[in-house]
This record gives sequence, structure tokens and C-alpha cells, in this order.
Amino acid sequence: RALHIALMPGDGIGQEVIPAAASALRTLTTSLPHLSFTFTTLPIGFQTFTETGSALPDKTVETLQKECQGALFGAVSSPSHAVKGYNSPIVGLRKKLDLYANIRPVKSVGGKAKLEIPGVDLVIVRENTEDLYVKEERSFDGGGEIGRVAEAIKRISERASRRIARMAGQIAVRREEMRGNKKGMVTITHKSNVLSQTDGLFRSVAREVLTGAEFAGKGLVVEEQIVDSMVYKLFRQPQYYDVVVAPNLYGDILSDGAAALVGSLGLVPSANVGDTFVVGEPCHGSAPDIEGKGIANPIAAIRSAGCMLEFMGEIEGARRIYDAVDEHLREGTVTAVDLGGKAGTAEIVEDILKRL
Amino acid sequence: RALHIALMPGDGIGQEVIPAAASALRTLTTSLPHLSFTFTTLPIGFQTFTETGSALPDKTVETLQKECQGALFGAVSSPSHAVKGYNSPIVGLRKKLDLYANIRPVKSVGGKAKLEIPGVDLVIVRENTEDLYVKEERSFDGGGEIGRVAEAIKRISERASRRIARMAGQIAVRREEMRGNKKGMVTITHKSNVLSQTDGLFRSVAREVLTGAEFAGKGLVVEEQIVDSMVYKLFRQPQYYDVVVAPNLYGDILSDGAAALVGSLGLVPSANVGDTFVVGEPCHGSAPDIEGKGIANPIAAIRSAGCMLEFMGEIEGARRIYDAVDEHLREGTVTAVDLGGKAGTAEIVEDILKRL
Ligand SMILES: CC(C)[C@H](C(=O)O)[C@@H](O)C(=O)O
Ligand SMILES: CC(C)[C@H](C(=O)O)[C@@H](O)C(=O)O
Repeated sequence: RALHIALMPGDGIGQEVIPAAASALRTLTTSLPHLSFTFTTLPIGFQTFTETGSALPDKTVETLQKECQGALFGAVSSPSHAVKGYNSPIVGLRKKLDLYANIRPVKSVGGKAKLEIPGVDLVIVRENTEDLYVKEERSFDGGGEIGRVAEAIKRISERASRRIARMAGQIAVRREEMRGNKKGMVTITHKSNVLSQTDGLFRSVAREVLTGAEFAGKGLVVEEQIVDSMVYKLFRQPQYYDVVVAPNLYGDILSDGAAALVGSLGLVPSANVGDTFVVGEPCHGSAPDIEGKGIANPIAAIRSAGCMLEFMGEIEGARRIYDAVDEHLREGTVTAVDLGGKAGTAEIVEDILKRL
Repeated sequence: RALHIALMPGDGIGQEVIPAAASALRTLTTSLPHLSFTFTTLPIGFQTFTETGSALPDKTVETLQKECQGALFGAVSSPSHAVKGYNSPIVGLRKKLDLYANIRPVKSVGGKAKLEIPGVDLVIVRENTEDLYVKEERSFDGGGEIGRVAEAIKRISERASRRIARMAGQIAVRREEMRGNKKGMVTITHKSNVLSQTDGLFRSVAREVLTGAEFAGKGLVVEEQIVDSMVYKLFRQPQYYDVVVAPNLYGDILSDGAAALVGSLGLVPSANVGDTFVVGEPCHGSAPDIEGKGIANPIAAIRSAGCMLEFMGEIEGARRIYDAVDEHLREGTVTAVDLGGKAGTAEIVEDILKRL
């Protein structure tokens, strides 16, 4: 299978970690000769915005849609204050390509990372198109004492809740099968005790899907957790959780929280998944503080290449990438700076590639 | 000073921990004879809803406003599915009494709690009246594939952002003075990279207030953190933070997260503070699983009585309660079940009271 993959490094350390991920894909083809990759680099991000007036040029979207089967996205810098006309391009991309599911696996591997909590193996399945991310905001003068007022819409639809719940259920079933006898579980996260209509809709549709015909007899356990208490539990008993499904914003917050459990944001990958396209994306940001120093941890990006393959149906390629990274972490002779070691990006990449 | 305090135990373990908090206040008067308390118990919660049709009877609000100087609220049960006419009474109370600040101190004391992380000493200052908690929701048929749709308003105003930022600044300055030479810091939490108008307003107003005339020369450090990354940092370097100010929903999530750092939600108090009224409230919920077993940890409620006093200006009374609890935790001979011990509510109360 010949795959044409777009590389969108974006800003900051995106420029350092996306090439690393691409080299992992390239290396993979030597042991999996049925796979081949060609790459196109596409502009995106704040730098692109300052150069072209758009953080997500039409041409980038067009090329993705017409020429590519998948993509890897790095990170973009947020301006430190509101800049007219600037909009987060990754949020735009998710919407334009209808990448409705953001899948974020968080797993401890028994590595040497000081802050890794053992036994964590969960997946955050984040709705990726709506909630407050519809970005419908307005501002007005509230009058007198009140001053300026701004409002944003949080929108939840049955359709989006249904498809994200299905995705969560399917992932839980697949994980259950891989693990053998341990039951799959999906935890629905919401705040319906306050937002009875919006989060109430998400909750009831997700519950309906996960306890409905499609998953009957699959042994899925379906639970719920209010979002504040979910964050608490995530830190108290992370080993308990399997698949966590959440509306967009809660999913965003929960996945950063979960990243803290495995030692660093620099380890956590994601896939933005739609029905016909997948974009792999490390969960970390552009990290301006370490940009250009050659010490960015490439693992989140490399694992994201694995996630991209997994959701493109290339399970074997994905598995090899995951295994090579896990082995690298477990051995722990070459350790990234964010995990308390001294190894630079290039050294880590080399150590992972040789295990592929 | 004679204070008339309302007790609103509510549901579940609220019934067990609020009497404990009241007994701490009573005991306090023996060593602080200038203080005296009288108490009135008022109905609130889901049980009250099933009996009277309202979870927050008008009479309760009226009595608070006319007869009381402060109050202690326990917890309320959320129904497991939407119940027509039922609205969270604590959210209603915050709005009706304009209790615009929710102050949640989270502190490790070097106690014996297995999961306590040393050196944590922070305060979450949560805006308490707006954001998605305005609860303005609507539902409609999105047509065709989309199905049902629900929308909620997230509202941020200049006025509410201004007063919560002032409160955060004042608390940081007071803490700075108490600590001596260590600088006070306020971290503004938001998601303005996505919500440029709403969270953008919160961010810019908070920054304006905290770097403005009122706090000039007070040595305050003002920082910012995007909410997802704030949750991550909270777990990676909680010792770094001092005062964290946030819009309502982020504050809700962050305070539960922070509670995980000190060993249990059963330890974390709060005060709902307005210009003329204060309601102390433990951060935990009604805990139906342990209701009536006599093992609820009363510490969050007792500390909440301390918070109530602090924000009523009774600093000495507050300090004594805080110190008694800290000493109890540090000694660790009587340990609550949620902290891995065997002591019941009554035993813990006794051990704390004797230190008052
Ligand atoms: C950069 C930002 C817009 C983005 C988000 O909020 O989705 C990021 O935090 C993420 O998790 O991918
Ligand atoms: C019970 C619920 C409405 C409440 C909130 O969300 O404010 C609770 O979580 C809290 O933190 O006091």
C-alpha cells in the first residue's frame, strides 16, 4: 500500500518532532515492504499566518483532501495576546476535514520516567467538532456596572454524540479482544448536574449507543463520571479506567491531565479521526522555551505516526511503532530531557529507529 | 460578636459533617469568649425537593438573608437522571446571595495520608456566578442526520472578572504578608487560545486588575496558564502555585483536581463569598455510597467553618480551626477511612475538638 502523507510541522518544536515521526515511517518500510510512503510538507501555524495572513491556508486544506491519505501535524504557537484574524488552525482543520474523534491513548510502560505511575492504560476519546469549539462568540456592552460582556455557545448534537460514543465503544471492544479476558469499559464524562440539556444530551445519547444493539453481548461495562470528579479519580485511581469518552473541552482537559500520569506530555500521542482521513498529532504544544535546542522529546510525535497508521487500518505498522517506543522507554538507557535524562531528539530517534 | 449561623446539611453525608462543623464552632467559644454562635437549620437539597417541590425553598433564602450572618452548607445529591423542575440548589444559592467568589484552599500539612504530596499550599479562587453556570440552555431539532441539538451559553462579564481578580489579588497579598518574604503569585487560568472573546475578556480584565493601581508595589507576580496545561502542571509541580484564579467551570474542575494532591476530597474546604454573606462548603459531594455509616471525613466541613469565619473577618477563630485540623492530621493517630485509616466521624471530631 502506497500512502501519501502530509507533514505539517507548524511552529516551535513541531519543526523538530514531525521529521522524527516521518523518519520512523520511512524506517518501518524496510521491515514491512508492502508499505511505502511519500511525503508532502504543508504550511500551517502562526509563522504561516504572519507570512500569508492565514494560519490554515486554503491550499493546505485542498492538498490534504485531494492528494493525501493521512497527515502528521506538529504544533502551533498561540500569540500571547489576541491577534485579529488569527484562528487556531488545528481547530479549523478538525472541522474542515470532519475529524470528529480525537483519540488519545495514555499508557505507562514501566519505563524509567521518574513521574510515571505504573499500570495506567487508558484512552481518552474526545469529541472533536463541537462543544465550545464551535467558536461562536459575541461581545456586547452590558451597560453600567457590568461593563463588557462576552458570550460563547456550547453546542452538543445528537449526531456528534452518537458517533463519538460508537467510536469509544468500538475502541473498547477492540482493546478488550486484544487483552483477552479483561472486560472493556467506557466511562462517559459530562457535567449534566449543571448542564442538563447540553451535557444531558451527550450523556443520554452516549449511554443509549453504548448499551444498545451494536454493543449487545460484547461485555462492555458502561459507567459515568461527572467531569470534576473524573479529574479527581484520574489521579486517585488511574489504573481503573479503560476508555473515557467526553465532549470536546472536557476531553482536552482530561487528556492533558492524563499525560501527567505517564511522566510527560512529551509522551502522549493522538489521532484526529474522521470517516475518510486521519491526522496524527502529539498532545504537546510548540514549547517555545525549548524550540531549536534539539532536546524536544520526539516520542509523542512518533507514537502519533503509529496512531495515524492504526486508524488508517495499518495495524501491524502501528503495533511495530508502539512496541519500538515502549521498548526504548523500558530499556531507558537513552532518556529525553523532559523525563529527567540528557538525550537530545536525534539520539532518541536513533534509539527508536533501530528497534523498528 | 454574636453570630447567627444557618446550618444546611442537605443530603447524604452532609447530614453527618455539618453537625461536626457546628460543634467545632461551639467549642471554639470556650477559648474565644468574645465569639458566640446560635444556629438555625434550614432545608435544602434533593430530599427537600421531593418533599416540597423545591430544592431551594424561598423560605431558606429569606431566612439566610434576614436572620443569618453566615452559613454552612453540606452537600446535595444529584438525581441519576434529569428530573423535571430540579435545579442544583447550591448553584442557585450562589446566584441569589451573589456569592461571587468560591475560595478553595488546598494545603498539604505533612500528615500521614498516603497520597498527600508534600509542599502543596495553594488557593483556587473560582468565579462563582457566571460562565456556563448561568444555565441558559435551549434544545431544538437540528433536522435530518443531526437530530436533537442543545446549546448552552457561557457568559463572562467585565464586572464579574474584575471582582474575582481583585479577590484573588487580595488573597495573594494577604498570604504574602503572612509568609514573610516569599512573593505572592496569581496564575490566571483560561482557554483564550480557543475562546478569544469570553476567556479573552476574563484574561485581559484579570491581568489589568492584578497589574493595576490597587496592587502596585505589592510585589505580586502575575502569570497565566491555559486550563488544559494548568491541570497538567498542577500535577507535575503543584508546589509552584500560590493563588489560581479561574472562571467558574475551570475552577470547579481544578479544585477537584487539586484535592487529589492532598490525599482526599474529604479534606478540602471552601467558602462561597459575597460582599455581605459567606457560605462555608466542603468540596466533596453527598457520597451516597458511605451515607449513614458514620465514616464520613468531617475535616472538609470543619475547615469550611474556618473558611467561613476567615471571610467574615474572624481571623483568629479561623486560624484556630485550621491549626487544630493541621495538628490532628500531622499527629495522625486518628485517621479517617478515606485517608486509609479506621476512625469514624465521631472519633475524628473528638480528636480535633480537644485541640481547639
Ligand atoms: C492548541 C489548542 C487549540 C488545542 C485544543 O484545545 O484542542 C490543544 O490544546 C490540543 O489539545 O490539541
Ligand atoms: C454539585 C455541583 C453543582 C457543584 C459545582 O459544580 O459547582 C460542585 O461540583 C462544587 O464544586 O461545588
